[in-house]
Amino acid sequence: MRLSEPVNICLEPIGTVVSTRSETTDDYWDKEQCFVELLESYGDESLLGLSEFSHAEIIFYMDQVDPGGIENCARHPRGREDWPKTGIFAQRAKNRTNQIGITVCKISRLTDNRLYIEGLDAVDGTPVLDIKPWVQEFGPRGPVRQPTWMTELMKNYWA
Amino acid sequence: MRLSEPVNICLEPIGTVVSTRSETTDDYWDKEQCFVELLESYGDESLLGLSEFSHAEIIFYMDQVDPGGIENCARHPRGREDWPKTGIFAQRAKNRTNQIGITVCKISRLTDNRLYIEGLDAVDGTPVLDIKPWVQEFGPRGPVRQPTWMTELMKNYWA
Repeated sequence: MRLSEPVNICLEPIGTVVSTRSETTDDYWDKEQCFVELLESYGDESLLGLSEFSHAEIIFYMDQVDPGGIENCARHPRGREDWPKTGIFAQRAKNRTNQIGITVCKISRLTDNRLYIEGLDAVDGTPVLDIKPWVQEFGPRGPVRQPTWMTELMKNYWA
Repeated sequence: MRLSEPVNICLEPIGTVVSTRSETTDDYWDKEQCFVELLESYGDESLLGLSEFSHAEIIFYMDQVDPGGIENCARHPRGREDWPKTGIFAQRAKNRTNQIGITVCKISRLTDNRLYIEGLDAVDGTPVLDIKPWVQEFGPRGPVRQPTWMTELMKNYWA
């Protein structure tokens, strides 16, 4: 392991989430309306061409997470003891080192420095770190497999 | 815009990329062999259950990018003037604010604190910020569309 010394990586928000949800609850995210508002230092040129894509990945910093609650080990997802003990890197739970959230959202429209999207699971005021277009060749290649507990967990996540 | 003040977000690597490629070249990433080696402070428990998934998202910090070369505006991707001028948030190019890379990789195997993967476009020594399991419900919903220049750009990216 070459990283013997701690390394600090300092990032800056490029914008913020504006959403109809301000509480960090678990499910039914499709009920919300939201957009990403870019900082003024990123003119509308930074988004040029994004409307040629159907979807974008929004990368955000989950600043509402209590640093004392960060998990590095295994736990039952959502405390459900009928689901297996699972490591934090085999979950997408928010209580994770670096508090990075990533979600593929449908692009609705672009106006000036605002990107209107559907299906973002981030609360109002969340700092945004990056926006990337969704590119099919960057999706999973080959057959996709996931455990049944995850499929159950996702049942009401969006709808 | 609520983010009137600059906000600094400091992250720490959870591990590092070990790869047969050390030069930041553009294409043919599938030729390489690689794994993520977690820091010792993340025991193998943090990866528990990840082998139940076929794919994982690797989130990494592209520390080889020259800070002076960061783009916030629009440019022709790869300098190709036959491709349209495109904003940095409508590209996945590395010269971007916050230098975050995200790639969905096929999981090969897990041994102790090493995650062997296929299809990672990060060079040897790249700090890793997070690992998330690929969950089908987090993929793009509805029809996917992308401009033809991106499909051309991706032609030799992997193979």
